[in-house]
Amino acid sequence: MTTTTAEPSVFEVLESEVRSYCRGWPAVFDRAEGSRMYDEDGRVWLDFFAGAGALNYGHNNKVLKRALLDYLERDGVTHGLDMSTTAKRAFLETFRDLVLEPRGLDHKVMFTGPTGANAVEAALKLARKVKGRETVVSFTNAFHGMSLGALAVTGNAFKRAGAGVPLVHSVPMPFDDYFGGTVEDFLWFERLLGDRGSGLGRPAAVIVETVQGEGGVNVARPEWLRGLADLCRRWDMLLIVDDVQMGCGRTGAFFSFEEAGIVPDVVTLAKSISGYGLPMALTLFRPELDVWEPGEHNGTFRGNNPAFVTATAALDTYWADGQTEKQTLARGERVEAALRAIAAEHGDEVAGVRGRGLVWGLEFHDKTHASRVCARAFELGLLIETSGPESEVVKLLPPLTTTPDELDEGLLVLARAVAETA
Amino acid sequence: MTTTTAEPSVFEVLESEVRSYCRGWPAVFDRAEGSRMYDEDGRVWLDFFAGAGALNYGHNNKVLKRALLDYLERDGVTHGLDMSTTAKRAFLETFRDLVLEPRGLDHKVMFTGPTGANAVEAALKLARKVKGRETVVSFTNAFHGMSLGALAVTGNAFKRAGAGVPLVHSVPMPFDDYFGGTVEDFLWFERLLGDRGSGLGRPAAVIVETVQGEGGVNVARPEWLRGLADLCRRWDMLLIVDDVQMGCGRTGAFFSFEEAGIVPDVVTLAKSISGYGLPMALTLFRPELDVWEPGEHNGTFRGNNPAFVTATAALDTYWADGQTEKQTLARGERVEAALRAIAAEHGDEVAGVRGRGLVWGLEFHDKTHASRVCARAFELGLLIETSGPESEVVKLLPPLTTTPDELDEGLLVLARAVAETA
Amino acid sequence: MTTTTAEPSVFEVLESEVRSYCRGWPAVFDRAEGSRMYDEDGRVWLDFFAGAGALNYGHNNKVLKRALLDYLERDGVTHGLDMSTTAKRAFLETFRDLVLEPRGLDHKVMFTGPTGANAVEAALKLARKVKGRETVVSFTNAFHGMSLGALAVTGNAFKRAGAGVPLVHSVPMPFDDYFGGTVEDFLWFERLLGDRGSGLGRPAAVIVETVQGEGGVNVARPEWLRGLADLCRRWDMLLIVDDVQMGCGRTGAFFSFEEAGIVPDVVTLAKSISGYGLPMALTLFRPELDVWEPGEHNGTFRGNNPAFVTATAALDTYWADGQTEKQTLARGERVEAALRAIAAEHGDEVAGVRGRGLVWGLEFHDKTHASRVCARAFELGLLIETSGPESEVVKLLPPLTTTPDELDEGLLVLARAVAETA
Amino acid sequence: MTTTTAEPSVFEVLESEVRSYCRGWPAVFDRAEGSRMYDEDGRVWLDFFAGAGALNYGHNNKVLKRALLDYLERDGVTHGLDMSTTAKRAFLETFRDLVLEPRGLDHKVMFTGPTGANAVEAALKLARKVKGRETVVSFTNAFHGMSLGALAVTGNAFKRAGAGVPLVHSVPMPFDDYFGGTVEDFLWFERLLGDRGSGLGRPAAVIVETVQGEGGVNVARPEWLRGLADLCRRWDMLLIVDDVQMGCGRTGAFFSFEEAGIVPDVVTLAKSISGYGLPMALTLFRPELDVWEPGEHNGTFRGNNPAFVTATAALDTYWADGQTEKQTLARGERVEAALRAIAAEHGDEVAGVRGRGLVWGLEFHDKTHASRVCARAFELGLLIETSGPESEVVKLLPPLTTTPDELDEGLLVLARAVAETA
Repeated sequence: MTTTTAEPSVFEVLESEVRSYCRGWPAVFDRAEGSRMYDEDGRVWLDFFAGAGALNYGHNNKVLKRALLDYLERDGVTHGLDMSTTAKRAFLETFRDLVLEPRGLDHKVMFTGPTGANAVEAALKLARKVKGRETVVSFTNAFHGMSLGALAVTGNAFKRAGAGVPLVHSVPMPFDDYFGGTVEDFLWFERLLGDRGSGLGRPAAVIVETVQGEGGVNVARPEWLRGLADLCRRWDMLLIVDDVQMGCGRTGAFFSFEEAGIVPDVVTLAKSISGYGLPMALTLFRPELDVWEPGEHNGTFRGNNPAFVTATAALDTYWADGQTEKQTLARGERVEAALRAIAAEHGDEVAGVRGRGLVWGLEFHDKTHASRVCARAFELGLLIETSGPESEVVKLLPPLTTTPDELDEGLLVLARAVAETA
Repeated sequence: MTTTTAEPSVFEVLESEVRSYCRGWPAVFDRAEGSRMYDEDGRVWLDFFAGAGALNYGHNNKVLKRALLDYLERDGVTHGLDMSTTAKRAFLETFRDLVLEPRGLDHKVMFTGPTGANAVEAALKLARKVKGRETVVSFTNAFHGMSLGALAVTGNAFKRAGAGVPLVHSVPMPFDDYFGGTVEDFLWFERLLGDRGSGLGRPAAVIVETVQGEGGVNVARPEWLRGLADLCRRWDMLLIVDDVQMGCGRTGAFFSFEEAGIVPDVVTLAKSISGYGLPMALTLFRPELDVWEPGEHNGTFRGNNPAFVTATAALDTYWADGQTEKQTLARGERVEAALRAIAAEHGDEVAGVRGRGLVWGLEFHDKTHASRVCARAFELGLLIETSGPESEVVKLLPPLTTTPDELDEGLLVLARAVAETA
Repeated sequence: MTTTTAEPSVFEVLESEVRSYCRGWPAVFDRAEGSRMYDEDGRVWLDFFAGAGALNYGHNNKVLKRALLDYLERDGVTHGLDMSTTAKRAFLETFRDLVLEPRGLDHKVMFTGPTGANAVEAALKLARKVKGRETVVSFTNAFHGMSLGALAVTGNAFKRAGAGVPLVHSVPMPFDDYFGGTVEDFLWFERLLGDRGSGLGRPAAVIVETVQGEGGVNVARPEWLRGLADLCRRWDMLLIVDDVQMGCGRTGAFFSFEEAGIVPDVVTLAKSISGYGLPMALTLFRPELDVWEPGEHNGTFRGNNPAFVTATAALDTYWADGQTEKQTLARGERVEAALRAIAAEHGDEVAGVRGRGLVWGLEFHDKTHASRVCARAFELGLLIETSGPESEVVKLLPPLTTTPDELDEGLLVLARAVAETA
Repeated sequence: MTTTTAEPSVFEVLESEVRSYCRGWPAVFDRAEGSRMYDEDGRVWLDFFAGAGALNYGHNNKVLKRALLDYLERDGVTHGLDMSTTAKRAFLETFRDLVLEPRGLDHKVMFTGPTGANAVEAALKLARKVKGRETVVSFTNAFHGMSLGALAVTGNAFKRAGAGVPLVHSVPMPFDDYFGGTVEDFLWFERLLGDRGSGLGRPAAVIVETVQGEGGVNVARPEWLRGLADLCRRWDMLLIVDDVQMGCGRTGAFFSFEEAGIVPDVVTLAKSISGYGLPMALTLFRPELDVWEPGEHNGTFRGNNPAFVTATAALDTYWADGQTEKQTLARGERVEAALRAIAAEHGDEVAGVRGRGLVWGLEFHDKTHASRVCARAFELGLLIETSGPESEVVKLLPPLTTTPDELDEGLLVLARAVAETA
């Protein structure tokens, strides 16, 4: 590893102190395939972090890679602003045929700057424009991005402090189960809305993740999501589901909100939508909300055509039928069983097991424990990360394409790492 | 063209009304090479817009393409968050050796989310954090991006109105030559700073483009930029040069501020930094400003490794010596001469010719004229766009690799388009 | 009454539509004494509103009047900015001797512009300056004033909408008993403070009324106030008690928070502090918070010396011993008994009886009922007003000097008004 | 003086450090009559500060005092919220007959909380409500008050810093002569308005003082004010003249804007409107702007009836004909002549003489000089104060009723103070 050399590396000398993952994972990575990453010295890791959910189909997925290479080789348009291209058309048609129409959705598709934060910024701007109101309600431990608009609806105090200006026009509400089931759902929210003296003006929208990944793998119950959708309808607020991390099959179905049977007004997608780790982001909204003027929101890289190509290939490969969803749920059960076994074995240390599909969290009572587990796992050949406001949760986001054997292998490493850091 | 078909296209039906360039350029593009783009029917256009400055080395540049294909074929890491990778190391070393060190710059490199707006958001956050002040000064007709922080320092009223909330913590000042030379440089700005009763608190920073591309190809004089750098130093404000569109050689030198001999505290780069139109963005800053905590600003796609590969190849190919700069300046003179000839021939209509390097603007008295010129040019096989607050300027941003013959060809089309829309 | 004349009055023609009380009480008042007001036609009303709590010692209190006339006759300084005057000295010494010292308070006294809103603005500015944080927590149905800073911590949606700009830097929390006792005190507030991912940054301060007068006569329990004081101490937030309406003996003790045994960091006083209805306001704070620079907050009328004179006389007359407190509590019991009798008689209509000392509220199920009661009471010779977010509560604020006979008389009128509007 | 006693006074011990005038004028004042103030030891001062403009008719004006005593003695309503009263009717009729109608004004009258800041807050709220826009333009060195809304349009950096939150929704523009006549009036302002890319959205309103008292006695030329009124009309912005300090005859005419022949949309009055130094404030506006809902802006002390009584008496006594205006202008000439003589004698030290009517400023090159002059004048028996962003201007605001002999007496003291501090 470079860190063993006497001289500081170019990363340490030249790259900003803001760098983060490279600290916990002190290796110089070179290649990757499927669920495995290789460093320059040939060392190999199982990757159960998957680009923070950006690699649902694994690293350098072979099918997608072929489509990408073909496109690049034939000099297909690479950078296309928001021009119409054959690659974009193929994506739009496939997204319509395999994603929207089968789910009865008639949402319009907006290609935003290719980051989840930008998709969220566009969603917030549109909601405020449509409703003519400023306030957006977000939830405790939400994460929606680091640009000023997205950061204002993000809960993490450390991230918020980086803004350098007060973050306004947002109000946090308790996420599902915030009080351990002791308080009726939406008691506070609904009361504030109904009380003309509450101090909360009518919000333009509510933005929610169905599973809070960064926030600690907090899973909203379907009935809570339905209650929220109903609340939004009754109080004329738009419901924005930020599916940047949990969409594209992470929880089983393509959209994470399908299980609850709700139809959000606005949906954001990024991370795994291109399927290959290429930057791409979408904001979807009901057609009657499409009040944008041409160019009112734009961005140089909103037409990343190679990403459209891999995105199309990913949809064709994984979403033409229900196999991916079924497989994800089955593999999720495997993960859950392994985590519950770990929890049972380390009952004094483990505070909880939470998850859906292939996103799982293992919470520890001792707030430093999760970090120690991840550090030990790295040594043992497994990439996993912490989440939660105090990094108290080990988060698992293996590629959906991780084989059962690989899952078992990684889960064994995890079990060992927990045991060795107890 | 698709617009001639009776049935509305999937773009019209499914894509949001926010789409923009596809309206002025009603074709479905398929392939591109160098300075030429081809639609699905085989029609060809000379592209003098170059992805709004994201394609300084042309479409699908052959050298960069080879490096990219090699990297993808060998399963180099595609998505790397901010992990250390061999591709990132190669980029950092090359950027240091060919860009920073030869120019005597010791700036740290921050990989932000891969959009110019995100690089700007990071710059603004850092400046406010370092100085502990909120206000950032921007300039009339500035364009810095569409997320909430970047939009607040953007001048365009139409874009600003999309925010849905008041845009605050920014104050506009007159850009160079805003009053046609009748008012002393920085008269208003310096007076406000020096007057304890002016109502302007001390700003954290000033953000400026050396040439305002979106704002109408407004070119700041070197002495004005030096005056601004001096003003910032004297009043303890950080100087942020947003080189997203004008950097990477667009004006001749790698950084657009080199001609003025100034050293900004913070620099943003995006658009052409990857060289191939792949999303990538950087924020550079003096080492003493690197007060970020690990992960205090992040983003899923800040490690777009294929972009690092093409970026490295682009630096190696075009910036190992001074040839690109010389060539750009020479070709710029060719463009200028042609534009001045057009202006001379259409003295009643043309309001001005402005530019540096290979960014040029042709302003018309009749505010609708520029749009008509661009529309006619499209029909004649040339892609150009308008800029300026009322779209009154034809903007030329040909790839720096456009050959003299191609330049002449395009400029002839432009001359014809002007003549035919007079 | 003027409203019966054919021609519109000068009030209707010349005064702004913002006028309010004159609509519900269509008379032209001329004289007033104690608890009675007289219109120009000699009609008389018992006044159980007392200038919204500004006339705790009644109209034109004879003792105070004598002091005021003497002062004016001898040409004592009337307008004194914040110059030292003999009248101010007398007030300060008396306030120290009769109010602060006997209660063990060492608070500094700031004379603000002579309105409650201004005292609140000063309190908020000081809290933010001391703590270096922006957010101030207020409570559902709080009322703190109409200037921009005070309005931001006021709950009423109708009042807030008048701001014309988004009201920021404030967060509402549930006031005592907001959920009818079903939710643990401060559950939401404490959880947000303790959760680093909650989205609530550490507030600079909490501002609270011990009894919310405008908000519907909501009475905080002493244990809730103690819990709040404890919460503020543990989380390093300043506790501001806005005693503008409930101070000066309205609830029994001089300060409304005495009963709870808490010592706020900051206290605002206005309304009845001058005792005679003359504009005057104070902000009190612990000495260690006195970080103001000279003149950092000012106001032309902060030295209303005639008000100092009547304020001094009021303290001397009513607060040299504990008689006023005892008397208020005794008369409050009389009011409560009468209200409970009304409630018992009209069990289907009356939703609740609430109060402390001599502030009482009678809530009706039918939201329009309270307004009808007040209108009928006016016809019957009693001035009372509604409060609450939907004007659903009849509020009683008789002068503390109202005699038992007058109380009985007014309560009989009230009973009749309720009966006749059932 | 109290400051010579060994023990700290109650002012020093108990009153907040925010106290200000009492520091420069270390005396304990007791009585006052006309233009003279007396301390408790019988020392006398000529008062050329007049309560910062709140005492245009002198201290304890005999005519007004008689009216006030009569009203108080007969138990006229003292505190009346916004009830109709005979005192208010008399004021409204007199204000209409002597002020509004003779000047052709049909403005509605709003009684706000009795401070200038509150009148400004009401004006800003109304302007934003009417126009549906947030931004209000103010001017360099403006002073409009200390509550959050008013402070945002105030220029002074020291005062602004007291807010504790960023002050937003306001933009400063250069006041008349800010560049010493070298820049065309409104060049910057008009350019920003006309340029769709300037970064300045359309403001709701402009707020201006015709003479900036706190800002350093900066006098706007009539043609500049006319230009501003024209600009506001052309760009659909409301023109608010803050006449709190310069109204009520201070500059000659009743309203300070009369000389320029303009009719503001909104006017604020406070300070001398009651005539006796009693707190009272008004906001006037064109009838079509009266979109307030009943009670949408309120305030406990907006019905200070004793102030209505003295206000009515002041109008009757001083504004029934044009004598006051003529006399003020004549006495102003006397002051100007004396100041010009001082300036001539101390040409090296005096930087300028500025004023209108009976508000005058004497600016010194040495920024500390004005403070020394005021300190010496105090010792010599004259109360004057500094103004300007660095307290570099001696400001004279003698009561309009100051006799020619008193004026001469004070001006001689001033001349001596200047000479002795040279």
